[in-house]
Amino acid sequence: MARPRVIIIGGGFGGLAAGRRLKKTNADVVLFDRRNHHLFQPLLYQVATAGLSPSQIAVPIRNLFSRKTNVAVRMEEVIGLDLDANIVRTTRGEERYDYLVIAAGSTHSYFGHDDWSRHAIGLKSIEDALEIRRRFLASYEQAELEENTERQRALMTFVVIGGGPTGVELAGSLAEIATKSLPPDFRNIDTSKTRIVLVEAGERLLTAFDEDQSERARKDLVSMGVEVRLNTAAQTIDAKGVEVKSGEATERIDAGAVYWAAGVRAEDIAGSVGSETDRSGRIVVGQDLSVPGHPNVFAVGDIAKFVDEAGNETPGVAQGAIQMGKHAASIIAKEIESGKRSELAERPVFRYRDKGNMATIGRRRAVADFGWLKIAGLPAWLMWAFVHIAFLIGFRNKIVTMIEWIYMYITFGRGARLITGDGCERGDSGGTGNAEAGA
Amino acid sequence: MARPRVIIIGGGFGGLAAGRRLKKTNADVVLFDRRNHHLFQPLLYQVATAGLSPSQIAVPIRNLFSRKTNVAVRMEEVIGLDLDANIVRTTRGEERYDYLVIAAGSTHSYFGHDDWSRHAIGLKSIEDALEIRRRFLASYEQAELEENTERQRALMTFVVIGGGPTGVELAGSLAEIATKSLPPDFRNIDTSKTRIVLVEAGERLLTAFDEDQSERARKDLVSMGVEVRLNTAAQTIDAKGVEVKSGEATERIDAGAVYWAAGVRAEDIAGSVGSETDRSGRIVVGQDLSVPGHPNVFAVGDIAKFVDEAGNETPGVAQGAIQMGKHAASIIAKEIESGKRSELAERPVFRYRDKGNMATIGRRRAVADFGWLKIAGLPAWLMWAFVHIAFLIGFRNKIVTMIEWIYMYITFGRGARLITGDGCERGDSGGTGNAEAGA
Repeated sequence: MARPRVIIIGGGFGGLAAGRRLKKTNADVVLFDRRNHHLFQPLLYQVATAGLSPSQIAVPIRNLFSRKTNVAVRMEEVIGLDLDANIVRTTRGEERYDYLVIAAGSTHSYFGHDDWSRHAIGLKSIEDALEIRRRFLASYEQAELEENTERQRALMTFVVIGGGPTGVELAGSLAEIATKSLPPDFRNIDTSKTRIVLVEAGERLLTAFDEDQSERARKDLVSMGVEVRLNTAAQTIDAKGVEVKSGEATERIDAGAVYWAAGVRAEDIAGSVGSETDRSGRIVVGQDLSVPGHPNVFAVGDIAKFVDEAGNETPGVAQGAIQMGKHAASIIAKEIESGKRSELAERPVFRYRDKGNMATIGRRRAVADFGWLKIAGLPAWLMWAFVHIAFLIGFRNKIVTMIEWIYMYITFGRGARLITGDGCERGDSGGTGNAEAGA
Repeated sequence: MARPRVIIIGGGFGGLAAGRRLKKTNADVVLFDRRNHHLFQPLLYQVATAGLSPSQIAVPIRNLFSRKTNVAVRMEEVIGLDLDANIVRTTRGEERYDYLVIAAGSTHSYFGHDDWSRHAIGLKSIEDALEIRRRFLASYEQAELEENTERQRALMTFVVIGGGPTGVELAGSLAEIATKSLPPDFRNIDTSKTRIVLVEAGERLLTAFDEDQSERARKDLVSMGVEVRLNTAAQTIDAKGVEVKSGEATERIDAGAVYWAAGVRAEDIAGSVGSETDRSGRIVVGQDLSVPGHPNVFAVGDIAKFVDEAGNETPGVAQGAIQMGKHAASIIAKEIESGKRSELAERPVFRYRDKGNMATIGRRRAVADFGWLKIAGLPAWLMWAFVHIAFLIGFRNKIVTMIEWIYMYITFGRGARLITGDGCERGDSGGTGNAEAGA
């Protein structure tokens, strides 16, 4: 048998785990990603809230698979699939594979309101995070200059839509920066009077946690000054704010910026698979994580929907993607070793090992649920900090990040409070322009 | 006399120095900048070459003048001046002043070829630096995928135009990253074969230094693999490269990216002053740094042209701007204290104290000229590193930057090697889009 060729689509947690597992095999592995970096998503909200710099939570994928390994990295976008012909189509051409791991992840879903994406930034990429930061800080700059008190009040109002971990972390961090870091800097406005509204359509926050912990998170946020609106949904979103609906009552909230943490859907490439997808566009995979009808194709991470025999769905978190990536790669590795394809029934069944859930709310506030242990407050926060630093990829990032956190903890200062970027003045390659923020 | 009002335009080295000096006075000071951050320009090339993150060399101006001081910071662009009416016009309205310090700095000059700005990025802002980084790294990603060897060669060619400190530092750093940091990451290309061409129209590099040191810098660059072309000027610049002319010979150089470090001119606001300007648009100031005919208006830093009685011109470096800013502010402070305007002839004359010149070329390579001491190589490099860290504003930045440098020095790794940003997909506020680099 010729040296088999494995293609991995995506350099997130799932694709990376698969690539690492396949390093030890006798296969030629190619990992495609349209970006050059792996992003440590769980800390992305800290870039959005001026605590960390992008390079502290991102690492070039090439760096993780040097030329000495059998894993080649190509910065190239995959735009189509032909599973019957075993072909992946990229912006540059066609690529044949023996095995395929689809780990392209998810993107924001605005539930059919695509026009909302302009007004309510989500948090998926570094660009998203920097744009969230820019709009937040620029809004205070405008408020500082505004003479109309009503408009000033609106510029100091921020709405976060969605009460999952991202929404909770974002709302908590924004409240913290507003009340602790910014006040000494402004003279016409009192940033500690910032209004932060967290809107959640369901009846509680953090549905992946126990009701007790959801309630603890809500109370913590309220004590930090965040208005938590449960059973409330966004009706319209425009450049000046949102209209929300709770029961029969609708309310208009004018805001300096609106952030979206409410919904995700599978990346479009999931649609090219041609098999069953769920409401969020995710590929429904078999017990071995393969795509039905294509035993040599696997889908892992946020782009896949896996429900085990007991009816439990693997959650869309980093641990889920990592475990799925490893599982799929292990099956591929074994078949490559043995030189023959296995029957579906012979393959090991994927089992998600729940290592626990953590969400941070603010300084010294977090909730953690490890099944056998449920904690909140400072112990949960310390554990959260420890686990996240331990998992950060790359030695350098760990040390620098730790220093930043210690510094931030002591001083309440936030180092990355820059308003940079944006605009479209350069023509040829869509370069970063020089337009002023807040203009 | 009512509390006098001082307006400072620009939060660069000159404006900051003036603001600091005026902190101790009985005046209301307003500092306008269209950006929210002060930029430590001398290290900007390190952001462009993936060594540092933007937040390590930039600090919000507000941070430096807290609400407790008499200096208010406003993120607002100044678009016009009426020196006869003592009025500054901003995007929001008119502002009256008793004293004005113009410290708006300089921007790139393409010598009348404004279309070159799209193809040859200069290095003035964080956005510029990130765009330089993006084009450099994205070019290798394209080269890795390119099958035509001629196009591949072009994608691995970079042209730097201008042999002053910025051009020298940029060329040296690019050579270093290409030969030391990148090779393990790519498999189809050998990045150590990168061609870096430094084009200088004059007959030597670093004209602010002695000829010996210019020659030393040239040799160092050549030993690092940089092609140094003296007496050579850019004729045309387009999306695919440059055409250069040396004597009668012209040559076409196809390149993955072209960088501009050749010329600067005063910011446009200099034109609103209505007094004499030089070829670069700079305001020609009197011996006290005031604008001729307007004793209550001063121009300092890169936007001013000052020639002392001996005929020596103050150079456009950080030290020049700082000293000028302090000098102008001291005159203002004294008049405010005494409560009366002084005669021009009574005012102290500005004298530039040359604290020396330094330029770094690469790892352990630099030149330094302190008048009484001229050094090169490792001692100059160590001194350069020491001085630059010592001057970095903000405690946190110093420590984190030092760690990054030590890490870089030991490993040749460069932490900030991210390709991020750009494009114009978002509509309303010119947000950072999601277009792929190198697409």
